[in-house]
Amino acid sequence: MNGSADISSLVEGIRRRDRLAVARGLSLVESSVHEDRYLAADLIDRLLPLRPTSRRIGITGSPGVGKSTFIEAYGMGLVTRGSNVAVLAVDPSSRRTGGSILGDKVRMPQLSLQGSAFVRPSPSRTALGGGTSTMRESIIVCEAAGYDHVIVETVGVGQSETEVADMVDMFMVLVLPTAGDELQGIKRGIMEVADVVVVNKADIDEHATLRAIATYRSALRLMLPAEEDWTSEVVAVSSLHQSGIDGILAVEEQFFDPQRTTSRERRRRRQRKSWFEAVLRSTALDWVTHDRAIASAVQDLRMAVLEETTTPTRGLMAIFDQTTISRTTSEGPRP
Amino acid sequence: MNGSADISSLVEGIRRRDRLAVARGLSLVESSVHEDRYLAADLIDRLLPLRPTSRRIGITGSPGVGKSTFIEAYGMGLVTRGSNVAVLAVDPSSRRTGGSILGDKVRMPQLSLQGSAFVRPSPSRTALGGGTSTMRESIIVCEAAGYDHVIVETVGVGQSETEVADMVDMFMVLVLPTAGDELQGIKRGIMEVADVVVVNKADIDEHATLRAIATYRSALRLMLPAEEDWTSEVVAVSSLHQSGIDGILAVEEQFFDPQRTTSRERRRRRQRKSWFEAVLRSTALDWVTHDRAIASAVQDLRMAVLEETTTPTRGLMAIFDQTTISRTTSEGPRP
Repeated sequence: MNGSADISSLVEGIRRRDRLAVARGLSLVESSVHEDRYLAADLIDRLLPLRPTSRRIGITGSPGVGKSTFIEAYGMGLVTRGSNVAVLAVDPSSRRTGGSILGDKVRMPQLSLQGSAFVRPSPSRTALGGGTSTMRESIIVCEAAGYDHVIVETVGVGQSETEVADMVDMFMVLVLPTAGDELQGIKRGIMEVADVVVVNKADIDEHATLRAIATYRSALRLMLPAEEDWTSEVVAVSSLHQSGIDGILAVEEQFFDPQRTTSRERRRRRQRKSWFEAVLRSTALDWVTHDRAIASAVQDLRMAVLEETTTPTRGLMAIFDQTTISRTTSEGPRP
Repeated sequence: MNGSADISSLVEGIRRRDRLAVARGLSLVESSVHEDRYLAADLIDRLLPLRPTSRRIGITGSPGVGKSTFIEAYGMGLVTRGSNVAVLAVDPSSRRTGGSILGDKVRMPQLSLQGSAFVRPSPSRTALGGGTSTMRESIIVCEAAGYDHVIVETVGVGQSETEVADMVDMFMVLVLPTAGDELQGIKRGIMEVADVVVVNKADIDEHATLRAIATYRSALRLMLPAEEDWTSEVVAVSSLHQSGIDGILAVEEQFFDPQRTTSRERRRRRQRKSWFEAVLRSTALDWVTHDRAIASAVQDLRMAVLEETTTPTRGLMAIFDQTTISRTTSEGPRP
């Protein structure tokens, strides 16, 4: 990347939905190289005025539930109806061997071949958490390229589901039908962010499927809805046989009904707000603790709190009482 | 408060379980007066080496579910079995009129009269959230006084349930039986921190009670347990008639079984760790933004992010690139 001229041509390529430009734009925003962070910020600055938007769809589920097959079936359904679909993936565990360039394309072979679809292989390590996630910027790049659906898939490690739920419009949780006494085992916290629960592999055991639908509906009814005007739905599909996908698309249309525009915009505003607060807290913390003496004192205090010899408040008061902040007169370091 | 001598005598009073000293200790740790914060830190510093501990029990439920009556029945059950019980309450909405000194004593008349029980009227405003909560310090004061059960009640406003769940050993959620199609309406997020679900007012409609028990058991089974060695229980009680309380006490004994010691200690360690991180982030943020220029720039940036004209990353890089941190040579300001 050579700076501003390259960014301009990158912006043009992305706006034209040039696949290579989109891929380069995504690589840039994902990059943790110091210089790239400033170039990526420039890129985003120039894409935002285009007011890019899309239907942002989050999808999660335990390994083995059939996420790839589902996303392929769902994505093909969208493409058939004229949509342009981007698929991004968060894979914090970095499990794939030998790099991941071919990984997602192999998992979604049919969708990867569609001209109106863009399946991004997941970066070998996508950081989530506080200020280090770049997934939102990736979404912005895809939207500026004109993809009207951006699907973000998470494999469900750590807090990744709730973090992805906090950056999408609609969050789908894939589950399998319970067979008899077998426990399904949804991670705690997922149920509360699910807008749609998708019972996959519905064709294998019809009784189990019906039982699962009833169980999840009952569990969702127990909880106050997260949105005033949306009650989470449970839909059964058989991704392999492409059946039930029309049901998913119908639920999506209900979710994105124009009558729900206000509540969706309120949700996005809340998401932007909490994104800001998370990056701010994380940046403030990084900034303060990059002072070596402070970092060392903080670490000693952390150990003392874990051992119950002190409480955080006392020790932190002492550390910060000895610290002052001043502003430099220059612009600060730039590459 | 006159400083160190008073703190010494306060410590002695608390260790003797002198009710007035306990009340003064709690008032001190709850106080937001600047000088009191240092005195409170001194008090806690001197109480911690006593290695105070107790069974920390959190209790929540919507208004009308019968929390006070339940806590009274449960507390009386404990007292009858020889326990010393402290009851603290978090009331973020500060709803009670004319101060709250008599509030809780009126709500739990029988328990308030027991010599081995201490019912603390909730402060008119108990701050929760990040670094401003003082409830953990209040728990420490009660434990140093020898109360072997410390019950923390929350009325369920905002994030108070998850915050209380993060500072107790066992978290009980009170619910009412569902009557037919009537939705119970558990706030999302509560189910995932519930160690015990208590179906209260079980005597009113036996069929509804049995249905509620089955529904909650099914919902809890859907979720992976938060602890490896504890499956959340559902217990029915009629607090008014003191029936079912033996069942609650039995579940408590199972939860605190010696075989579960390791997992309970791991939980407490996790709680101390997340307490530390929360206070650290909050303190770092307060420290950085007490600089007026930074605070102003941050506010402008917040508005821009909400309006989608920029992303947090770019703007915060700019703000913090212009800032440096230095240490003062003195100890810093002390009253």
